[in-house]
Amino acid sequence: MNTTTILKSEFEERIRKFQANIKNEGLDACLVHATESDMAHVRYLSEYWPTFETAAMFVPAAGEPVLLVGPESDLYGARRSWCKNIEKMIVYRESAEPDAPGMSFITYKDLIAKYMPGGIKKLGIAGWAITSLPVYTALKEELPDVELVKADMTLWPLRYVKSEAELDCMRKAFQISELAVEAILNEIKPGMTELQVIGIAQREIFKHGGEYEGHSLYCFCGEATNNAISRPTHNLITANEVIQLNIGARVSGYSSSVGLPFSIGPLPERKKRLIEFGLEAHKKTIEMLCAGKPAGQVVKDYEAWVHERGFGQYLLYGPCHAIGMMEVERPWMESTSEYLLQENMTFQVDTFFYDHDFGLRWENGVIIKEEGVEMLSSKFMKLIEV
Amino acid sequence: MNTTTILKSEFEERIRKFQANIKNEGLDACLVHATESDMAHVRYLSEYWPTFETAAMFVPAAGEPVLLVGPESDLYGARRSWCKNIEKMIVYRESAEPDAPGMSFITYKDLIAKYMPGGIKKLGIAGWAITSLPVYTALKEELPDVELVKADMTLWPLRYVKSEAELDCMRKAFQISELAVEAILNEIKPGMTELQVIGIAQREIFKHGGEYEGHSLYCFCGEATNNAISRPTHNLITANEVIQLNIGARVSGYSSSVGLPFSIGPLPERKKRLIEFGLEAHKKTIEMLCAGKPAGQVVKDYEAWVHERGFGQYLLYGPCHAIGMMEVERPWMESTSEYLLQENMTFQVDTFFYDHDFGLRWENGVIIKEEGVEMLSSKFMKLIEV
Repeated sequence: MNTTTILKSEFEERIRKFQANIKNEGLDACLVHATESDMAHVRYLSEYWPTFETAAMFVPAAGEPVLLVGPESDLYGARRSWCKNIEKMIVYRESAEPDAPGMSFITYKDLIAKYMPGGIKKLGIAGWAITSLPVYTALKEELPDVELVKADMTLWPLRYVKSEAELDCMRKAFQISELAVEAILNEIKPGMTELQVIGIAQREIFKHGGEYEGHSLYCFCGEATNNAISRPTHNLITANEVIQLNIGARVSGYSSSVGLPFSIGPLPERKKRLIEFGLEAHKKTIEMLCAGKPAGQVVKDYEAWVHERGFGQYLLYGPCHAIGMMEVERPWMESTSEYLLQENMTFQVDTFFYDHDFGLRWENGVIIKEEGVEMLSSKFMKLIEV
Repeated sequence: MNTTTILKSEFEERIRKFQANIKNEGLDACLVHATESDMAHVRYLSEYWPTFETAAMFVPAAGEPVLLVGPESDLYGARRSWCKNIEKMIVYRESAEPDAPGMSFITYKDLIAKYMPGGIKKLGIAGWAITSLPVYTALKEELPDVELVKADMTLWPLRYVKSEAELDCMRKAFQISELAVEAILNEIKPGMTELQVIGIAQREIFKHGGEYEGHSLYCFCGEATNNAISRPTHNLITANEVIQLNIGARVSGYSSSVGLPFSIGPLPERKKRLIEFGLEAHKKTIEMLCAGKPAGQVVKDYEAWVHERGFGQYLLYGPCHAIGMMEVERPWMESTSEYLLQENMTFQVDTFFYDHDFGLRWENGVIIKEEGVEMLSSKFMKLIEV
């Protein structure tokens, strides 16, 4: 199967840019963390995706990076990653903390001695929010004289503007998501469970060349649609109720999500009205986006527009967040945001409104362009009653 | 759909037992962490499963526990969990770290003031291996006089011996896994990708009442079968090669996994011989299990048996680990293990052998009983050539 992918040369280019940032920040090296559900930083640098265990990339300001894996993942790491240097460390074991008797591991102290024999003074940590206590306490104990610094911003900005290869992965991921939504709309019936609907999406994602879900998939019917975050349940799909889908495939690490509220049979007028207003707001946001626009301004204009029309009480947040290797990633578009939109940044336009007994979310991906956006998905930007 | 589930009274009983352990350890309270892919401890206590964001349970030695969620999950928490007390904290936000302007959050300091007005001196942390730096640094800053203690063993042992309701969830999860394996064996063809085979399993899991995969699913063909941990790829399924499946459904939080090597068409004699030896070893382990047996002894006897027969060079680890809310959980069965097997502990018999160009893993679940085991799966404990 022809799969969209990222070439080794692009990974090497990423490392070079990351190393320039590490040097500019006055750091000797960075340690980058990943878990099974939050693998993006390490995958971005190495293509490695930890499973069961966790992992890290150790990137010196100059020289070769080292992929750090848990007790059982050295062969997997060698097969999956382009990194030549792979080391096993006990701190990246599973959370059930096996002793792994008889196996040998490198320590942070020996890692530095082996790869940076001149020693280090200042170590950046990227992926601070997901770095675990065993990693932190081992660093403190084994490298007592090294200063540890939160260094997320040496890495995050590299991921903001996407390359052509990244955009191709995302285009494909959104295409697959639309195929999955289409299958659901064709097959959904009252009496199915929310989870059985998710099964249709999972089937389609893998069938069409996806490698996994792009995020935990949503199918909620009725009251649960007012949860900004939730998980599908064994509750039954019913007619004349709001059904919310957020379906995303993952391609070569890149996520996607297509979100729409719909119904089987007609909805009460009150619910229909908020859904239609939501779609109008969703389109309004898309109109506002183009390169050079201050991100915070988009949010302020959106919120003012919603309040002017008398729908402010239904607003939780919005209207955009970046998407890439994570379905939600930086930069957020919030009223406090201080950056300008740039060409080839990718955002989810994520329009969520909720009332006491239902909610709705329109979600589509866009690529920022000079004059506006390229839509990554747009097929289901309409009120559907199946 | 009739779903196997855990009743509120069982959650309350778990909290009571946990509180007794907290008190016995001389702690004032425990903070229990969870992530999207490592949700077990918090789900065990609350039924809550964080998604996108992380979460924690704050459990005082006496009184009501508090579920701590991120900025967007309060309605989800209230819908999903039985906990009456739910608080929002910024440290449980997504790893992309939104500012969440305009929202209000509780701090650890205010949490203690509200729920334990007498103050605390010693706070246990359970789920230490997955507790993140933002949580740790916030605790240190907001509660500078409170002693923080790794307290996993106040919680883990409660999960070792399963209740009847837990065993029912696991029985159902294994049944669904067997249905998924059966569908794969019926439909697999040379030229499909490993990932497309996973799509068959995903389809079946949700169709038959599973709520998710029980672990990241395995289908590897050829050389990659010698990876103890790996992920499926777009590589093609071929005939006359070892194909490894590890397929697990999740039911009400409880995981399962059925693992077998098989082939389409005959295998070379060398590979067939190691697979057959693996199956013999797998059955040998199952024979050795019963309540009262020292866990470390099982491992030593297993390893001695394998070495005696001249297959020691193909051994990485084994032969069992506990299974429950995580596919791999404590207690591990390692040569260093010092506990006795108890009735209604649940283990995966996980028999892995690998050579330079292929590997194999037989995996089935068992419930420890007085006189032996109850098999949670056994349908595919044979050499299959489709």
